[in-house]
Amino acid sequence: MNDFMYHNPDKVYFGKAQIQHLPAELRQFGKNVLLVYGGGSIKKNGIYDTVLSCLVKEGFILTELSGVEPNPRHTTVNRGAAICKQADIDVVLAVGGGSTIDCAKGIAAAAETADGNVWPLVEQKIWITKALPVVAVLTNAATGSEMDAWAVISNMDTNEKIGLGGSALIPRAAFENPEYSYSLPIYQTACGSFDIFNHVLDNYYFSQDAAFDMILEFQEAVMRAVVKWAPIAMKEPQNYEARANLMWASSLALNGILDAGMMHDCACHAMEHELSAYYDITHGHGLAILTPRWLTYLLDEETAPAIHRLGTAVFGIEKAIRPMIGAKQTIEAVSDFCFQTLGLTATLSELGITDEHFAEMAKHACGGRSLSGIKTLSSADIEKIYRMCL
Amino acid sequence: MNDFMYHNPDKVYFGKAQIQHLPAELRQFGKNVLLVYGGGSIKKNGIYDTVLSCLVKEGFILTELSGVEPNPRHTTVNRGAAICKQADIDVVLAVGGGSTIDCAKGIAAAAETADGNVWPLVEQKIWITKALPVVAVLTNAATGSEMDAWAVISNMDTNEKIGLGGSALIPRAAFENPEYSYSLPIYQTACGSFDIFNHVLDNYYFSQDAAFDMILEFQEAVMRAVVKWAPIAMKEPQNYEARANLMWASSLALNGILDAGMMHDCACHAMEHELSAYYDITHGHGLAILTPRWLTYLLDEETAPAIHRLGTAVFGIEKAIRPMIGAKQTIEAVSDFCFQTLGLTATLSELGITDEHFAEMAKHACGGRSLSGIKTLSSADIEKIYRMCL
Repeated sequence: MNDFMYHNPDKVYFGKAQIQHLPAELRQFGKNVLLVYGGGSIKKNGIYDTVLSCLVKEGFILTELSGVEPNPRHTTVNRGAAICKQADIDVVLAVGGGSTIDCAKGIAAAAETADGNVWPLVEQKIWITKALPVVAVLTNAATGSEMDAWAVISNMDTNEKIGLGGSALIPRAAFENPEYSYSLPIYQTACGSFDIFNHVLDNYYFSQDAAFDMILEFQEAVMRAVVKWAPIAMKEPQNYEARANLMWASSLALNGILDAGMMHDCACHAMEHELSAYYDITHGHGLAILTPRWLTYLLDEETAPAIHRLGTAVFGIEKAIRPMIGAKQTIEAVSDFCFQTLGLTATLSELGITDEHFAEMAKHACGGRSLSGIKTLSSADIEKIYRMCL
Repeated sequence: MNDFMYHNPDKVYFGKAQIQHLPAELRQFGKNVLLVYGGGSIKKNGIYDTVLSCLVKEGFILTELSGVEPNPRHTTVNRGAAICKQADIDVVLAVGGGSTIDCAKGIAAAAETADGNVWPLVEQKIWITKALPVVAVLTNAATGSEMDAWAVISNMDTNEKIGLGGSALIPRAAFENPEYSYSLPIYQTACGSFDIFNHVLDNYYFSQDAAFDMILEFQEAVMRAVVKWAPIAMKEPQNYEARANLMWASSLALNGILDAGMMHDCACHAMEHELSAYYDITHGHGLAILTPRWLTYLLDEETAPAIHRLGTAVFGIEKAIRPMIGAKQTIEAVSDFCFQTLGLTATLSELGITDEHFAEMAKHACGGRSLSGIKTLSSADIEKIYRMCL
């Protein structure tokens, strides 16, 4: 087991009857709240009214920033940071999915800088230790942003989608009511579910060492939960247990518990961020297209046992077969999960993506060096994986 | 999945090269440190010197309270609280196992009361929201106190051993260096390991509902880790991976992650606290004697599937057999683990305990009402379980 530091002070209120605690959680920071949300689905499904009704009567002063994009732009973040400065905001309240929470985190960080511009922080990979407090009301099980130290911000001028991290970006409180994800479209449920799955899988292979079994088994339990509950949530959007399992899986995937003593890798995530940055596609869909190809590219005699273990633990693949055969069956099972069960289209071509930018995307993805994981991937490797996805 | 609140702001520094961060963690609270430890083993194994050398050169003013008992007494706690008041202590630093940390927590709570007496807080079950900060340097994988909100304090005048809980009792930081447990005697390693195992098992049965599988599987992973690594740590006390797995299992068992969405029960713990309160025996040993009898007492057609599931997940019992047969094999496996693998004696008689106080102990254990769990236990049930342990 490697040395590690585990610290996650986020206070999670999980379940149906928790929003009543929101005023008390916000009040400790002040009365001036910046309410951040996306395209307005929270107005249709009533969550906006629920949040407002419990805040306005408590005397909070709300300023709104709406229209956060699915891959939140640095320009939107900067707009929010300017509001924070003008309106003397005490706390940033995100109501939405991962993009909205990421945007709120970017705002919280930028608001504490002199010029209120988030992009230099992102570009220079500044670890954020000072930010306005962020509180999240989650409506989509996917990114884990409700409980992690990261935000992903996109700059569409330069085709860049980059992570911004820092201890100060962990939300001070997260409200996770599975019912708030009932109205999520099937496609978003599928994409969010695969995002969770891949957060764990990206991390899973690095430590094929019995000393890490306990944590590997946690990871397998979370992936099994996604494989089990995602199709149920897609068929029965109001199945509470399905939504609850996916929502808590989302938080567990990135709250640090599954990393303790391991390396945290993110090869697929790094490759996918380029797809979203260039083509603004839905993150989880990009991941689903990449993942089976990534596994296929990694597969050799050395990696087969690890891939086979995933199959036996998560997809019910037989144990007592040759690892290479087991690994191939596992990759088949991952493909089936992505393209049959979750119903996502299987190629980049179907999303209108060509090989035009693959070379530069591959270089970006690995920061000009390489991506770590069960195997180190150079930009040449990454370009080949992109081509396998066409 | 039930509604829950998850909040654990403890900052865990895990591994070999972490003690260097101790001064910074303490400094934020002040310079006056109360150093709490037990019978002096930390002086023999060098941990005392390590801690001192990294604090004294940083200008901390240390006051010591040593001689904390294995089941810490309220009188010792009160002695510590008096020192805190006299010496204007800023932070209580526990260096030791669970008893030492529990004592430090009691001190931290009592120091904030007018009369510095912990017992009224314990007796009246006051939830502690105000206490001096506690920092823990852990030397024994067992109680989980390094990462939970609880302390167990004993009053030997009244034969009471009772939990004191509160959000303010969660350590602000915990230093977990598996090497610090290398010199632990085999018997303590065995008892500590079973304490961890039972923390999870006490909680395991309540929710035999597929909606909780993810968390049940986490629980099974922790129990498997204990079953795997405890005998290795006993045979090879300096096996880092064994000590590391046990230490992190200790923290995971009670840091809230394994409870999320479940009920937290503690039937065996409640029954055992009476044994320790009356006879001052080692907690983990008492638990080991109780657990197989508790399972035997619970076993019927209704509970058999849950007990059988434990066996298949943790002890390799066959799945495709009748639940009642599987459950019996499971209880046999738990017995073997306690009395063969861990080498603990199997009866209360061997510890010099008779049935003299069983009736009153049973009443105390359930607070005059009953103990919850997979089956509700009355004081009459508990007395029968005690008798099975003779």
